[in-house]
Amino acid sequence: MHARNAFYAQSGGVTAVINASAAGVIEAAREHPEAIGTVYAGANGILGALHEELIDTARESAETIAALRYTPAGAFGSARYKMKGLEENRAEYERLIEVFRAHNIGYFFYNGGGDSQDTAHKVSQLGEAMGYPITCIGVPKTVDNDLPVTDTCPGFGSVAKYIAVSTREAGLDVASMAETSTRVFILETMGRHAGWIAAASALARDRDDAPPHVILLPEVPLDEQRFLARVQACVERIGYCVVVVSEGLRTANGEFVADQGTRDAFGHAQLGGVAPAVASMVRDHLGYKYHYAIADYLQRAARHIASATDVEQAHALGRAAVELALAGHNAVMPTVVRDADSPYRWHVGQVPLETVANREAKMPPEYIDADGLFVTEAALRYLRPLIAGEDYPPYRDGLPEYARLRGERVARRCPPFGD
Amino acid sequence: MHARNAFYAQSGGVTAVINASAAGVIEAAREHPEAIGTVYAGANGILGALHEELIDTARESAETIAALRYTPAGAFGSARYKMKGLEENRAEYERLIEVFRAHNIGYFFYNGGGDSQDTAHKVSQLGEAMGYPITCIGVPKTVDNDLPVTDTCPGFGSVAKYIAVSTREAGLDVASMAETSTRVFILETMGRHAGWIAAASALARDRDDAPPHVILLPEVPLDEQRFLARVQACVERIGYCVVVVSEGLRTANGEFVADQGTRDAFGHAQLGGVAPAVASMVRDHLGYKYHYAIADYLQRAARHIASATDVEQAHALGRAAVELALAGHNAVMPTVVRDADSPYRWHVGQVPLETVANREAKMPPEYIDADGLFVTEAALRYLRPLIAGEDYPPYRDGLPEYARLRGERVARRCPPFGD
Repeated sequence: MHARNAFYAQSGGVTAVINASAAGVIEAAREHPEAIGTVYAGANGILGALHEELIDTARESAETIAALRYTPAGAFGSARYKMKGLEENRAEYERLIEVFRAHNIGYFFYNGGGDSQDTAHKVSQLGEAMGYPITCIGVPKTVDNDLPVTDTCPGFGSVAKYIAVSTREAGLDVASMAETSTRVFILETMGRHAGWIAAASALARDRDDAPPHVILLPEVPLDEQRFLARVQACVERIGYCVVVVSEGLRTANGEFVADQGTRDAFGHAQLGGVAPAVASMVRDHLGYKYHYAIADYLQRAARHIASATDVEQAHALGRAAVELALAGHNAVMPTVVRDADSPYRWHVGQVPLETVANREAKMPPEYIDADGLFVTEAALRYLRPLIAGEDYPPYRDGLPEYARLRGERVARRCPPFGD
Repeated sequence: MHARNAFYAQSGGVTAVINASAAGVIEAAREHPEAIGTVYAGANGILGALHEELIDTARESAETIAALRYTPAGAFGSARYKMKGLEENRAEYERLIEVFRAHNIGYFFYNGGGDSQDTAHKVSQLGEAMGYPITCIGVPKTVDNDLPVTDTCPGFGSVAKYIAVSTREAGLDVASMAETSTRVFILETMGRHAGWIAAASALARDRDDAPPHVILLPEVPLDEQRFLARVQACVERIGYCVVVVSEGLRTANGEFVADQGTRDAFGHAQLGGVAPAVASMVRDHLGYKYHYAIADYLQRAARHIASATDVEQAHALGRAAVELALAGHNAVMPTVVRDADSPYRWHVGQVPLETVANREAKMPPEYIDADGLFVTEAALRYLRPLIAGEDYPPYRDGLPEYARLRGERVARRCPPFGD
């Protein structure tokens, strides 16, 4: 068996642990030189293949690759770039195969969400149709936790921990000042169409009446009267109210409360600003003094407070992708399979890419309180182990010292593409 | 010498380390039972004295008091409540003396910013005038770092660390996505009239062209054209731009860019929302895709990423307040005196309350770049040691486990006041 090279690419919004998956892929590949030659990483994700901008990971030391485990964001660059369907833009897929062929790439590891698993699946189909054998393995990644089949998705546990910790800390702040200052504090989270991130704030509640007091989920259309009544009752009972709201919150008409009217490259609405909208409701109807926070990228980049469980899973699924490829699997994605809630036990499973492509996993009804304003004990049982454990990066001069790559490019062998 | 009791109160916006100062006060007092009986803490700050809501800290275990060192926000409750001048509202000051007398309180430790040091100073003057001997010692506290004389102010180092860490992490996120997504990221910080917190983001820059790229300070009126030209040049050179903006940013006319038109109890403008205002400028004039984060209370409550230097100073100044009182000082505040930048050395000094009362320390001109869009190496030399060291709280089930007080109240001895 002749060794063939591998192509690894990061896709979509980055996370605190996507580089841990990259480390898992590269480290596992290095252990099998008989099968895998060099791992080339796409500069800016799949664009790196289209434009033949390949980063030679063989030029990075073992120490640098190990440091990726504690380095947030996309070390090789990621891209919000959705490949069209095979029929609509066959040329893009053929270009991928051209570049793969030129660099003897026999493995494609695509680290992304549902859209990316769809792309990996199509590449695997086209490779077959074009007689160019390419093993395509997905590596799951999304802070939104909205991939189906896998019990959780690397990236989620860390943003969940950030939101739970921040809710506890800001909740203490608001509680201590409420007598003469802010009565209602609103924290806006990411999560798009799925409420998982906002739901994770509930882990901060360690006793009755502890924050958060209200969680507004995208799965539940906003009932403004019920929401305001809950806030008012909370302020009247304990003096303040902490509200966590997902960016994807919708009105009863199905409109995003925070739709800014812009779309990203995947055609998704670009969200943001639901916190001020909710704050305005509170001010206009209840008159309480409010503050709000919009954590935005801070939450998904916060490697300093990553979940050790999440880091471990991200790294393990990166390794597992290579192991699945070497075991002869194709067009599959490794998954997290939960064996037990407490003590938490899990193992790596797998799922065909076509099963996860373009499907969103929202919060199930049994995880949402009957009144739609909080989550259930079942949700907490699911969420709790995912934020467990701390995994601090090294510090220097008071700041985390993250990996820096050489990022050397492989010499081009193909003509330019497109433009 | 008969032991007399002490009154401790937290004032104004809370911080990640104000409870470390409380621990310092209480622990030092417990070491001197011959001079100090019980430390009573005001429930909700000075309001606790006015309404005779005194928390009996003697009912808290040594372990609980030690845990205050790693617990954010105001464990006893804080208040935004400014005592008026002696002439305007003598009754309030007389009420304080009445409550102090009823509980044999001979020491007043007031943990707050400039307004609070003014109050402590007035109480000391009135005590003298009324023939009721009361030793008034300030304990400095403000995330804004705007107290004069002291080299830095407990609370600042930790929020500075949070902002520097967050800027580094979010900067990596933006850099890795810029090719196909956000070009301009804007992080709004606290700081009111002083740019210290925003300035601290500069510590994240570990090489040329690393984030942050622009810092907008309250000390420099916004020159919109110059700002936009800098952003554009940055995006054209490296593909993206990270901007850190202080909530207190003003226009050339002296208006707050983010003035919401409301005032707090101290008569200060309530700020917030400068990030979206700056983002709109970028969108309207340059058309780049942007995102913004408003960390709000998350930054000042973030005990999980506190500066070890800050925690140590907060605790030491709490202790020093008691030691100053026992040494016979009155109407003074302990300060941080810097002996050397690197390696950093400091000691505790002191200053008369009247010198720090109601004075704001802004960033000096030599700390601000000539173009007003960044800070100088001198500023970095000043800031660097303040964020040094990590001081993690204990965790349980993935979340920091913060102190919880019994909070038992002392029996009332005075008639009700006011209302």
